[in-house]
Amino acid sequence: MKRVKLVVAYDGTAYHGWQFQPGSRTIEGELNSALGSLLQEEVQVIGASRTDSGVHALCNVAVFDTDTCIPADKISYALNQRLPEDIRIQSSEEVEGDFHPRHCNSRKTYEYRILNTRFPIPTKRLYAHFTYVPLDVQKMRQAAAYLTGEHDFKSFCASGAVVESTVRTIYELAVEKTGDEIVIRVCGSGFLYNMVRIIAGTLMEAGRGNISPENVKTILEAKNRQMAGPTAQACGLTLVKYDFLSQ
Amino acid sequence: MKRVKLVVAYDGTAYHGWQFQPGSRTIEGELNSALGSLLQEEVQVIGASRTDSGVHALCNVAVFDTDTCIPADKISYALNQRLPEDIRIQSSEEVEGDFHPRHCNSRKTYEYRILNTRFPIPTKRLYAHFTYVPLDVQKMRQAAAYLTGEHDFKSFCASGAVVESTVRTIYELAVEKTGDEIVIRVCGSGFLYNMVRIIAGTLMEAGRGNISPENVKTILEAKNRQMAGPTAQACGLTLVKYDFLSQ
Repeated sequence: MKRVKLVVAYDGTAYHGWQFQPGSRTIEGELNSALGSLLQEEVQVIGASRTDSGVHALCNVAVFDTDTCIPADKISYALNQRLPEDIRIQSSEEVEGDFHPRHCNSRKTYEYRILNTRFPIPTKRLYAHFTYVPLDVQKMRQAAAYLTGEHDFKSFCASGAVVESTVRTIYELAVEKTGDEIVIRVCGSGFLYNMVRIIAGTLMEAGRGNISPENVKTILEAKNRQMAGPTAQACGLTLVKYDFLSQ
Repeated sequence: MKRVKLVVAYDGTAYHGWQFQPGSRTIEGELNSALGSLLQEEVQVIGASRTDSGVHALCNVAVFDTDTCIPADKISYALNQRLPEDIRIQSSEEVEGDFHPRHCNSRKTYEYRILNTRFPIPTKRLYAHFTYVPLDVQKMRQAAAYLTGEHDFKSFCASGAVVESTVRTIYELAVEKTGDEIVIRVCGSGFLYNMVRIIAGTLMEAGRGNISPENVKTILEAKNRQMAGPTAQACGLTLVKYDFLSQ
């Protein structure tokens, strides 16, 4: 028996998110079924980030145990032959038997992409949120500055989510503009349910001038989801980096 | 009666190219039908670049004549309501009655995008050609240098294409690398059928080391389609810029 770690990239457009749900297309479901067919074993992967419906990833992580004699590093090639083209394994390797992707110290980086043009651009529509309302990037940056560091992010957590603590640390929260695209890049040890999309929705409210950047401090302190901006559209969000620091 | 010019962006993935074909989804067909429904007239647009099946555009141009009293600059908004989301008008304006997009002096810029990674990245699959074979960008640039300027591009024209002259001028042919992506950017007054994709296919052959950069000179001189590289996949190609210089 060996434990194998997969790095998984996917276009989330056609999926009901990562987590297995009977009767729905999910990334986890596709991986389990492709692995089952390849290895002729019943396989259940453990995912690192259970991304939402419509969210994309360049590097989500899944681990599973197997008795196969296929070398771990060859599994990526064989598995890609059996996966739909909107899911592609980027690497496969053997890891310690007690490696668990959600019990590790890790840093995840998400990008939230916004297209800020007069009209939508069709070739960007699947991977960026479109808004024609001009966004002031300086104001978005000022607002973002209140969110970096360790905070209670209760106001930025989908209501109803059950979680022990809503305290999280954001290491970096940058707002970059290239041409007509604005990218919100956030790096943290972990995120609450919908946290990145609520941050994106709130920064866009600041960029539109609907709230002042200083307002973000009040929103944090309120610990009330109603105070923050809307949950931004899923298609703009991509998990772009996943670093495991230690067990 | 007025003549209206549309700038049209589209994701070509789901279309059999620009040009109207009965029974097939085409960009021209969608435009004619959306305009017909909006203006309650029979409309036939004249397209500037009749892009192939699967090719994308940020800024193709279409013109049509209409008796409508809708102001020309408002047509973009109304038309976008009636078009599928993979076609979006970027602007609409009234032009001179004798403006014809294919009889003008113009400069067109195409980008051919290549993803050069070990495995495909699903979120890039619709807009870039994937190859895992490492490409030497220096060699691609050396090969590209032989193609700039005025040449007889017969070797770079799909065989069977009927055309008066195969002489064309390339103003610029750049090969840029950003991360894992290579972009071939070509600017010219006009291109032969499949010319940009055959150039891309030939530069990739140089990048792989299958032909030497100097070989491109021989290929040009041969005036024989068989000598050049293969026609690169349509999905990598996007019309990115269209400038009209004069009537």
